[in-house]
Amino acid sequence: MAEPSQTASAKTDSVIDDASAPMRDRMTAYIKSLQLQIVSALESLDQEAPFLHDSWKRTQGGFGTSCVLSKGTVLEKAGVNISVVHGTLPPAAVAQMRVNHQELPQPQDVGKGLPFFAAGLSLVIHPRNPKAPTVHANYRYFEVTKSKTATEGEATNSDEPDEIVSWWFGGGADLTPSYLYEEDCVHFHSTLRDACNSIFPSSADLSSVSLHPPLKKWCDEYFHIPHRGECRGIGGIFFDDLTTAPHPRLSEAANASKPSTAEDIFKFVRACGDAFVPSYLPVLSRRINEPHTEENRRWQLIRRGRYVEFNLVYDRGTKFGLHTPGARIESILMSLPETARWEYMSDMGAEGTEEGTLMEVLKNPKDWV
Amino acid sequence: MAEPSQTASAKTDSVIDDASAPMRDRMTAYIKSLQLQIVSALESLDQEAPFLHDSWKRTQGGFGTSCVLSKGTVLEKAGVNISVVHGTLPPAAVAQMRVNHQELPQPQDVGKGLPFFAAGLSLVIHPRNPKAPTVHANYRYFEVTKSKTATEGEATNSDEPDEIVSWWFGGGADLTPSYLYEEDCVHFHSTLRDACNSIFPSSADLSSVSLHPPLKKWCDEYFHIPHRGECRGIGGIFFDDLTTAPHPRLSEAANASKPSTAEDIFKFVRACGDAFVPSYLPVLSRRINEPHTEENRRWQLIRRGRYVEFNLVYDRGTKFGLHTPGARIESILMSLPETARWEYMSDMGAEGTEEGTLMEVLKNPKDWV
Repeated sequence: MAEPSQTASAKTDSVIDDASAPMRDRMTAYIKSLQLQIVSALESLDQEAPFLHDSWKRTQGGFGTSCVLSKGTVLEKAGVNISVVHGTLPPAAVAQMRVNHQELPQPQDVGKGLPFFAAGLSLVIHPRNPKAPTVHANYRYFEVTKSKTATEGEATNSDEPDEIVSWWFGGGADLTPSYLYEEDCVHFHSTLRDACNSIFPSSADLSSVSLHPPLKKWCDEYFHIPHRGECRGIGGIFFDDLTTAPHPRLSEAANASKPSTAEDIFKFVRACGDAFVPSYLPVLSRRINEPHTEENRRWQLIRRGRYVEFNLVYDRGTKFGLHTPGARIESILMSLPETARWEYMSDMGAEGTEEGTLMEVLKNPKDWV
Repeated sequence: MAEPSQTASAKTDSVIDDASAPMRDRMTAYIKSLQLQIVSALESLDQEAPFLHDSWKRTQGGFGTSCVLSKGTVLEKAGVNISVVHGTLPPAAVAQMRVNHQELPQPQDVGKGLPFFAAGLSLVIHPRNPKAPTVHANYRYFEVTKSKTATEGEATNSDEPDEIVSWWFGGGADLTPSYLYEEDCVHFHSTLRDACNSIFPSSADLSSVSLHPPLKKWCDEYFHIPHRGECRGIGGIFFDDLTTAPHPRLSEAANASKPSTAEDIFKFVRACGDAFVPSYLPVLSRRINEPHTEENRRWQLIRRGRYVEFNLVYDRGTKFGLHTPGARIESILMSLPETARWEYMSDMGAEGTEEGTLMEVLKNPKDWV
């Protein structure tokens, strides 16, 4: 991929850092820049297979750019996507969001719905080598607004920005190996932990305020496949509904010192997003030439079957997307692996085998750092 | 597989036909006999790969037998399973079932729940050759009972049979080709139509009373993948909640002459079940040696991806199973193909190609007979 021009890049950077600019513009600029950075890092490992850039517009409002790679030598299937969309949140969705955002109006008071804005980056990378782990990351910003001049859900032509009723950030990153290399898990988790902790001054008592332990736990709980009694992978971090208010997932001490202004939360999200390349690339580059057998490949495809099960049955984002009329299905299902496999009563994964060693950790999540 | 002994077979037949025996015993005997018949017909096509028989007991009550084949020459993955289970239906499930069975008590009046009994046969066959279609069929009988002596959900030791509060039959069969052969579709549908019509005397005006047209329509509606805007396959028949009462899916004329006693509905279900082998085996046997390319195989795997999407996201039986604690996951997910494939913005399936011809029919279901 061509480098962005110096001017464009400098302009992007200045919006990201401009505390007076609307957060929707700053987050949009950030995910654009992060997408370029991640794609360029991945291309450095697989120079013969450049990502295809596929930009799209949403009729109902918004745009996106999918950077997709298939049939790479190193990467079997990879997508690094951004989407910046706006539209109307129907009353049923408002009702659901009120559970965590009580400042939202009652669903019966919103007419046909409330305007929303969402900007996010979402990536999934399935490497070819069975010894190299799959990775997923997603960082997103959500706003619900109240049009200043419109009433009862009618559109307005005013250029004045909408009044923000509610906003929050969500995101995370998690690793899904088919074979367990403890040093890979430790590297991935310690990089994310350091990013989480980077927002605190070096004098802070991290043992009580660090967001890493609760976000690691949240990740293990979210990427869980109840019908299999196992996690999808070895975890990472996961968070949602991060805003000024204290978060029920955090301890009193963590809530007291957590980033609580939009500025500080954005800084936290950027620290996590910026940690993606350093958390994953070193792991990927040391596994892509690992020797492997047909049996290793078979196990990788069985594990990819579990990936499909999680994404189609439990993942909230995927379910929401599949049930949204007019959603871009190709982008939503881009997370699925190129190939997956289901065996009846498979003999792979038994205790005492390399595959069984992974299963042990998926059934009993471990603190890696 | 060894032939069942003459004695066992004769005993089974006599229970099936014994109008004085409890329906649960008759249906159990029928699905056992149908399973043997289907497995033996499939084995006749692939003699080097016998089905493995895997019997299991459910701790909470009941048993099943899975007949499973993998790595066959003709069949890539196939399962013909029966299960006969009983247990307690929680109040939430009673509430859901009351929608179609208003004779059930109010959920608040059932204490911890109501006893239920379910006996069913379920099969999925994924042949190896991309020109040979996948098939699915399922026939089931469901009973909700009220223990005669127990109160408020307590168990009873009495040998007296439970009083049946509600019962119904459900089932159907549907075909999922990757490549369209019109004569296969016509054969499959006309065999099922003839089975549906076999319950009427030859003098009946089939144009107004036949259950085939509404059950074909129901099948197209059920096996629909909304997020893709396409059906899973080319249909078949589908029905649920078939009992003495008129069915809202049927016209007045069809309801007036539909089988409405337990005896007649059981006869109808058996006619459909008995039609499975003649509807599918001739199609399978004429496609298993069809020449095919790597591209045909690639398309077959993409279509299997859609099969996975339907089963994991929409299929009521699969969803119910995955969310039932203690359910046998290996049996529930046996329906998934051995391998499935997802491509981002695939170039296959375009108009004017062989693959596009199938897509046309999946997007606009056709009446084949």
